[in-house]
Amino acid sequence: MEKSRVLVVGGTGYIGRRIVRASLAQGHPTLVLMRPEIGLDIDKLQMLLSFKAQGARLVEASLDDQAGLVAAVAQADVVVSAMSGAHIRSHNLHLQRKLVEAIKEAGNVKRFIPSEFGMDPSRMRHALEPGRVTFDEKMEIRRAIEEANIPHTYVSANFFAAYFCPNLCQMRTLLPPKEKVHVYGDGNVKAIFVDEDDIATYTIKSIDDPRTLNKTIYIRPQENILTQNEVIAKWEKLSGKVLEKVHVPADEFLASMKGCLTNFEIGEDGAEATLLYPEVQYTRMDEYMKIYL
Amino acid sequence: MEKSRVLVVGGTGYIGRRIVRASLAQGHPTLVLMRPEIGLDIDKLQMLLSFKAQGARLVEASLDDQAGLVAAVAQADVVVSAMSGAHIRSHNLHLQRKLVEAIKEAGNVKRFIPSEFGMDPSRMRHALEPGRVTFDEKMEIRRAIEEANIPHTYVSANFFAAYFCPNLCQMRTLLPPKEKVHVYGDGNVKAIFVDEDDIATYTIKSIDDPRTLNKTIYIRPQENILTQNEVIAKWEKLSGKVLEKVHVPADEFLASMKGCLTNFEIGEDGAEATLLYPEVQYTRMDEYMKIYL
Repeated sequence: MEKSRVLVVGGTGYIGRRIVRASLAQGHPTLVLMRPEIGLDIDKLQMLLSFKAQGARLVEASLDDQAGLVAAVAQADVVVSAMSGAHIRSHNLHLQRKLVEAIKEAGNVKRFIPSEFGMDPSRMRHALEPGRVTFDEKMEIRRAIEEANIPHTYVSANFFAAYFCPNLCQMRTLLPPKEKVHVYGDGNVKAIFVDEDDIATYTIKSIDDPRTLNKTIYIRPQENILTQNEVIAKWEKLSGKVLEKVHVPADEFLASMKGCLTNFEIGEDGAEATLLYPEVQYTRMDEYMKIYL
Repeated sequence: MEKSRVLVVGGTGYIGRRIVRASLAQGHPTLVLMRPEIGLDIDKLQMLLSFKAQGARLVEASLDDQAGLVAAVAQADVVVSAMSGAHIRSHNLHLQRKLVEAIKEAGNVKRFIPSEFGMDPSRMRHALEPGRVTFDEKMEIRRAIEEANIPHTYVSANFFAAYFCPNLCQMRTLLPPKEKVHVYGDGNVKAIFVDEDDIATYTIKSIDDPRTLNKTIYIRPQENILTQNEVIAKWEKLSGKVLEKVHVPADEFLASMKGCLTNFEIGEDGAEATLLYPEVQYTRMDEYMKIYL
């Protein structure tokens, strides 16, 4: 089978840049949307030029130019959006409505992967603000996709490793603690940690796969389903240093999200990525943490 | 001669990241300051970790922690600062005063290269606001360095290529124009364009060189001293497309900077980089522009 042509929207972002690299690595003809809104952002421009040097093709179009967007989308078999939802209240994710409209009008796209990659928003109806708005915006885009009958896959990647693993689940830092670590609740709640490059690898793996059509793909690497205590133990072993544990009562923030990513079975409308693609050597969290030593 | 140990301050910035790579490439033991102020900036953190993976050592210290800064500086023979001066009125460059103090106190540093890399501020006394403040701040740091008797080199790199060359010297864009190009004055004023990686290469070349001690090193690659008309002609040749020329009278902004970088001879207190290091194969501007095709 010929490899599908992939158009990445949001290709300079945290996940987007990895999607571009994974698409190229897996041999897909890869297009990256270059929005004129990039303006004088030299870092984004140089990242786009580096993708071009690696074999991607830059396609210029603004999300405010429907005809240009339709022309861009018409060149691709698959559209992957990784537009940032990180800036809470920027309502950036809303802009994907224009992309949905363009895909509908172009009519040729065989698969659309909207910007998700986090927790499954359909299971986050009880989430609190300010995070809540992101889940609501993702659900709104899902409804637009489904109303337009656009073939799709939603990707749920659980916890991005860099944000939760090396800091041993500590708030307000991305670095390993040096002396003390706050343990939330009893520290035995399971969470799923995923290397960000692995997210991109599994996403690109899924785009031509009939098993993931109109489904949610969950990335649940068996060896990366860990409690906070287990993550702490891995770091202590790697660093050769025992940390002082400061216990924080279970009604604190992190504990309130108790099991939110592990407390459901994947049903008929979902599929698990590491089972679908056992050939991928995913990154284990002790490997991941080594760079922080 | 043993290679000097280089500490880079501002290593995640536009020039700083290139200085780190050049230092590693030229075989220097390379330290990069990691300021806790990086906070939750995942992009900066991941860049620092990538330097570490390439062999650099990360040294943690805040510019607000004099003792920590002295300890960091004490580990290096040479300190290169590439702190950003891009955000006009952020007065970020002022923070280098603390670095000067720490270098003075540590007493072991054989060379300090402050954040300059642009036009020679000692020749920009007639510059207009808002650019003016940056030159003034650089001069203030020079005075502090010289009063503290710190061995130093100032690097003047003229025009960063990415900002002025591919856009054919057009304002408010970084990309080549597609139809029309504004020609400032008669288009025959010379300017000097320098590849950003070359700036880093020459900077690192100069740090152990007695010929550059307490001098300004100017980077004037002979083949990159070009008029706007010549830059336009190079792009037209590369792209195979002739642009419509729109002439803008000589009293406009760019023309007011007439010859500001080429209208002086380098005297005893300066040295020219491409003559000092003829072994470096610097990037010519037609090579540079190819990636934009």
